[in-house]
Amino acid sequence: MVKTFIAVVGGASCSAEEAKLAEEAGREIARRGAVLVCGGLGGAMEAACRGASSQGGLTVGILPGSDPRDANPFVQVPIATGLGYARNVLVVQSAHAVIALYGNYGTLSEIAFALQKGIPVIGLNTWSLAKGGEEDSSIILAENPLDAVAKAMEAAQKRQLALAQGAGS
Amino acid sequence: MVKTFIAVVGGASCSAEEAKLAEEAGREIARRGAVLVCGGLGGAMEAACRGASSQGGLTVGILPGSDPRDANPFVQVPIATGLGYARNVLVVQSAHAVIALYGNYGTLSEIAFALQKGIPVIGLNTWSLAKGGEEDSSIILAENPLDAVAKAMEAAQKRQLALAQGAGS
Amino acid sequence: MVKTFIAVVGGASCSAEEAKLAEEAGREIARRGAVLVCGGLGGAMEAACRGASSQGGLTVGILPGSDPRDANPFVQVPIATGLGYARNVLVVQSAHAVIALYGNYGTLSEIAFALQKGIPVIGLNTWSLAKGGEEDSSIILAENPLDAVAKAMEAAQKRQLALAQGAGS
Amino acid sequence: MVKTFIAVVGGASCSAEEAKLAEEAGREIARRGAVLVCGGLGGAMEAACRGASSQGGLTVGILPGSDPRDANPFVQVPIATGLGYARNVLVVQSAHAVIALYGNYGTLSEIAFALQKGIPVIGLNTWSLAKGGEEDSSIILAENPLDAVAKAMEAAQKRQLALAQGAGS
Repeated sequence: MVKTFIAVVGGASCSAEEAKLAEEAGREIARRGAVLVCGGLGGAMEAACRGASSQGGLTVGILPGSDPRDANPFVQVPIATGLGYARNVLVVQSAHAVIALYGNYGTLSEIAFALQKGIPVIGLNTWSLAKGGEEDSSIILAENPLDAVAKAMEAAQKRQLALAQGAGS
Repeated sequence: MVKTFIAVVGGASCSAEEAKLAEEAGREIARRGAVLVCGGLGGAMEAACRGASSQGGLTVGILPGSDPRDANPFVQVPIATGLGYARNVLVVQSAHAVIALYGNYGTLSEIAFALQKGIPVIGLNTWSLAKGGEEDSSIILAENPLDAVAKAMEAAQKRQLALAQGAGS
Repeated sequence: MVKTFIAVVGGASCSAEEAKLAEEAGREIARRGAVLVCGGLGGAMEAACRGASSQGGLTVGILPGSDPRDANPFVQVPIATGLGYARNVLVVQSAHAVIALYGNYGTLSEIAFALQKGIPVIGLNTWSLAKGGEEDSSIILAENPLDAVAKAMEAAQKRQLALAQGAGS
Repeated sequence: MVKTFIAVVGGASCSAEEAKLAEEAGREIARRGAVLVCGGLGGAMEAACRGASSQGGLTVGILPGSDPRDANPFVQVPIATGLGYARNVLVVQSAHAVIALYGNYGTLSEIAFALQKGIPVIGLNTWSLAKGGEEDSSIILAENPLDAVAKAMEAAQKRQLALAQGAGS
């Protein structure tokens, strides 16, 4: 049976408050039996991996550099892409749903790629978007990390089901 | 002497109004002696290339697919990346400034990548961004295509100068 | 502790004989506690994953396409790159040693990338190279799958040790 | 009308003899009205660009790094990929034929990618390949730079014609 893969995206450096939320999200992802995907570096990525690892979860880090040793110590599967920022596309494409926590322009690019691909994005204190003066409400808002993971799992499973039924990419 | 490269990013399909603006931007880029970079496909990209070509300008199309023949007929230098959406990174990285016209999530990812790299973004009826309830004002707003190109050329030259003086990334 | 990652590269379609060798290699990689990395598709990749899975090993498939569901059924961690052939670079870069079995030009590109990066390549009935009339003997030849995995593990550990001591790229 | 694009691949550092051949190839590519594509750096790439520039030809450099200023001074269209070695795929994919001069493993990867894609490869003192004890004769051998360019132009035009007639990718 195919597992559910949930990406956590956020800043490579982050506040203690953000790290706490990312770690809680990572823990909950593992508790629910899903695999954590992230960009493999520090900040929110490391905190999420630490959380998932503490619950025996599997963690995948898709790195910008070409050396697997760049990964934070809680990444079990480091993928050395050597692609620089373009690796952001791989992070979201390899997930069934994406949780965005705070973050900067890198996180914004991951949100954009996910929405372009139809991969659900759950936002926790992250970017908000508008075009032509109108709010874009594609990001599903969450109250806290547990809520974010619950919504990510639900959206991911709905998407996996839709894909299995041939409802498109 | 190195030429100035200006990227025009926008939807692969677009309204007649958007196409008119993109074409006007392309014409002005060529008139000012700059090279037009874009994603090489239809819509706003094709309109911009048509405009630049009409003034004898050079046009570069960085394609998502692996076949140079995917390019619109006004692309003189088609780059076949085969990278899919990840090619968006290459479009902005190869430019000294980026003009964003309307656009969807793909355009949003290009805006995000450019801002992450410190490459100036000029916006014409495009996305607006906020984080934590606060507007992000990094996108330089333009009134019309001529204004957008003027601002892009100015920002590009300022950036080229700063880079030449070792001030940056 | 960081695990050893061994890539198996070979044809996406292959003879029964090649599949048998790939499966045996996969089994042995798992028995030795290493993680199997491959391109995630059929042929030698699928056979290697089937072998590793049968021993409870972890399998990573770095796919050319943008849909994780393209992976063969024995891939536990599918990475959807969307990069086409360029994903070959990621397969070898994410491994500590590469075992090349038979294979076509795709496999040749993986051998080339690994040698360029200084990642050891073990060859089993695969390409041989010459330049200027002189044999290139960088590929370590193996007699059979068990021998290939033994040599891959030894070379991988030597390389990991050298890197840890700062000896290298 | 679409121009013919010819890639010249070879070492980023090279002997004076190799540079002379690369420069001569670049000159001849420009004389025949084709566009030169290369990896944009030094050695054989720079020599080929210098040759093409001296005849008023157009030169495209597809760079591994993310800064267009990494290009050698004879590159007129620098593409900043940020992809590292994976950019080799883009170099060959954007050409109608590839001329390989000497070169190391990077050049070998470009030969492999071109052959995988069915893009003709002309070799001048470059790698030779064998599999299962049998020579692979896919590389078209050339005697000198003029012969290499003549064969590249012929193979490129045959391929463009075949593609135009729908004979496949």
